[in-house]
Amino acid sequence: MSTAETIAIGSELIVGGRSDSNSLFIAEALAGIGIEVKFKTIVGDDQSDIAEVLTTACRRAGIVIMTGGLGPTVDDCTREAVAAVTGFRLARRKDAFESMRARLAQWGRIPNRGQLRQALIPSGATVLPNLVGSAPGFVLTWRNARVVALPGVPSEMQAMMQQSVIPGLSNQLDRSKQAHPHPITRVIFHTWGLPESDVDSKLQGLIQKRTPVALGLLASPTGVLVSLTTRAHRSIKEAVLLSLVEGVRTRLCDWIYAEGQGTLEEAVGRLLQQQKLTVGVAESCTGGLIGYRLTQVPGSSAYVDRGALCYSNQAKTDMLGVPARLIEQHGAVSREVAEAMAKGMRDHAGVSVALSVTGIAGPGGATETKPVGLVYIGLDGGGDDVMAKEFRFHGDRSVIRQRAAQAALDLLRRWLIARGEA
Amino acid sequence: MSTAETIAIGSELIVGGRSDSNSLFIAEALAGIGIEVKFKTIVGDDQSDIAEVLTTACRRAGIVIMTGGLGPTVDDCTREAVAAVTGFRLARRKDAFESMRARLAQWGRIPNRGQLRQALIPSGATVLPNLVGSAPGFVLTWRNARVVALPGVPSEMQAMMQQSVIPGLSNQLDRSKQAHPHPITRVIFHTWGLPESDVDSKLQGLIQKRTPVALGLLASPTGVLVSLTTRAHRSIKEAVLLSLVEGVRTRLCDWIYAEGQGTLEEAVGRLLQQQKLTVGVAESCTGGLIGYRLTQVPGSSAYVDRGALCYSNQAKTDMLGVPARLIEQHGAVSREVAEAMAKGMRDHAGVSVALSVTGIAGPGGATETKPVGLVYIGLDGGGDDVMAKEFRFHGDRSVIRQRAAQAALDLLRRWLIARGEA
Repeated sequence: MSTAETIAIGSELIVGGRSDSNSLFIAEALAGIGIEVKFKTIVGDDQSDIAEVLTTACRRAGIVIMTGGLGPTVDDCTREAVAAVTGFRLARRKDAFESMRARLAQWGRIPNRGQLRQALIPSGATVLPNLVGSAPGFVLTWRNARVVALPGVPSEMQAMMQQSVIPGLSNQLDRSKQAHPHPITRVIFHTWGLPESDVDSKLQGLIQKRTPVALGLLASPTGVLVSLTTRAHRSIKEAVLLSLVEGVRTRLCDWIYAEGQGTLEEAVGRLLQQQKLTVGVAESCTGGLIGYRLTQVPGSSAYVDRGALCYSNQAKTDMLGVPARLIEQHGAVSREVAEAMAKGMRDHAGVSVALSVTGIAGPGGATETKPVGLVYIGLDGGGDDVMAKEFRFHGDRSVIRQRAAQAALDLLRRWLIARGEA
Repeated sequence: MSTAETIAIGSELIVGGRSDSNSLFIAEALAGIGIEVKFKTIVGDDQSDIAEVLTTACRRAGIVIMTGGLGPTVDDCTREAVAAVTGFRLARRKDAFESMRARLAQWGRIPNRGQLRQALIPSGATVLPNLVGSAPGFVLTWRNARVVALPGVPSEMQAMMQQSVIPGLSNQLDRSKQAHPHPITRVIFHTWGLPESDVDSKLQGLIQKRTPVALGLLASPTGVLVSLTTRAHRSIKEAVLLSLVEGVRTRLCDWIYAEGQGTLEEAVGRLLQQQKLTVGVAESCTGGLIGYRLTQVPGSSAYVDRGALCYSNQAKTDMLGVPARLIEQHGAVSREVAEAMAKGMRDHAGVSVALSVTGIAGPGGATETKPVGLVYIGLDGGGDDVMAKEFRFHGDRSVIRQRAAQAALDLLRRWLIARGEA
């Protein structure tokens, strides 16, 4: 039972423009208890297709985790497919029904006919309660495989993985006579500001031949992700892995803005709180993305005071006191206006530090001297501590806006680190 | 050859936090020429695992499209896996090498040792030139399946699908003695405001038995997506599908905010432009998300004037003139403050319509009378046209913020529709 497969069910995952992210969460959670996901399959809402992939998965893996197709509508047929493959008949289960009724009652609703189907569970299966939504899941053993069926709604699936599936599999691993598999350990570093090839050069020669640790690099609009992965024995890991982790930290130093599940907005928030500072943001081309990211962190009201989305030139003048003449003279996308936006925000809001962004996200708006992707980021930390930096980003409108927000938050992070060390 | 499978190769797709979006593009492109993708598999960079899924796919489908694992690094082993499964030996191909050398030369580079491996192609395969990147693809026939191997970089894969793979498969369909499959048509409706079970009830009985059109429903934090899918003959389609599309529109009427690839922010932007109006937003708990979404639409500077992210109470007073006493009396999360925020935004900015949001996104901040998820949305359209509505959303911080932004944009959409009809 040391390898697993995932099956994501839903026609929208085939041509509906929606990609399966559940399986990433599941693979990560299973890796934590030493179980490796080797294959992931996606299949539409078709009972015989689901049956086909379930049969294949049970032949290859000890654990099969299915998501989706447990809802109340007619196209939800995971239950029927599992029954058809395993031969376990579906019957309405009292525990499943009661848990569903209780949940719907909280929302002031009673189960409708479709939802009654959600209480149909294959005989011999254990019901997995759903504390977030209405559809219960289940787990059963067929041939040599543990088959788990979970709802496709990410928040429901995640809660059930954490509350039921992972603890259940851990217990089973403890009881089994096999040696407990070594957990797969994966250390992740998030970097910003270096192209992938530069990250690669900086890490050349870090890992000696035959060291049982794999190095991975992955580029995205918000930076390059570096990973170290190993499933070696704990004692080897502690020695070797720790020294490699230190090696990555030393070589990539402050290009690393977060490790593991951390985000840039969390890193910035932590620094602001440590230094007891407040922040205000003045956004033009990012349109609110920086504010949205900063306030995504629970408790961010302790340091985020306000933001101005000054999209029009008039708004830059009204909200931040940027002189109309300055905009006329240098253009709204200029170093001067970025500085004035940051200054205006800091002065008006009385915050410790203000961040500003003005740029051309495209596709329109470019001039001969100012191409799409040109972005100025300003920062005012009080007194003479005012700066603005020029960036040139590539990509479409959405990518340019993402990169601009990332660069702005990273500029603030670096300013906070320098301030903390001074 | 009327069904296809995709295989996405790359360990980062298993636990790297990156989901496979290539297969969505491929399935969409194949649907256009009547080929249905039934299964999608994701596998890590492991030669024998790739061989296993390729064998399974060739057994089930007439067309297998593989993406990824054609790069220059040692973990790229798609070529080797295809050779191992099919028995076609790898050899360096002159056409593949020349096209790669030409591409690298454009960038002022010469092929390195790793890139030389990219010219290794299974014997009997046809080389697919890569006009965007350096790794060529290939296509071959094994047993009864057409096997296509493409790079994993989305821009390269997409160009090769459009330039080589789709035209090649179309030709083959034209030449084959089988009847040409009918293109698969899919119509999508995006709804907000009705739970999935209510959407289901409203669509009960819409599709008669034996009508060759499938109805799909998909719930998400931003609403329920409804789809109609058919691969019937064109003449049947036009008659039946059009009447079903009308049926969905009539039954779900203004719960539908967009069709196809459309978004709510585009729908709102279109209405604002038609009516020559400008908008300002005053956001508290959504933290800038509404502004970010509105400005995600190219050309939105024509109608988005500004936004105020008034996170602190002081910011609500400074930026929008919300009286401190009003906040003291009713709390920042109240109908009264939502109205005052919208009014303040409209008065200060001189925009046609102002939208406001204040709420408790959690996890902290709840009181006995004001639970997490309580959100007030205000709108000021001028004169007496001021309103605020109460919402209670479920979910975590991120979901509550998404739902609040969606509800706010939808309130604005409905107001604009009513105004346009008046």
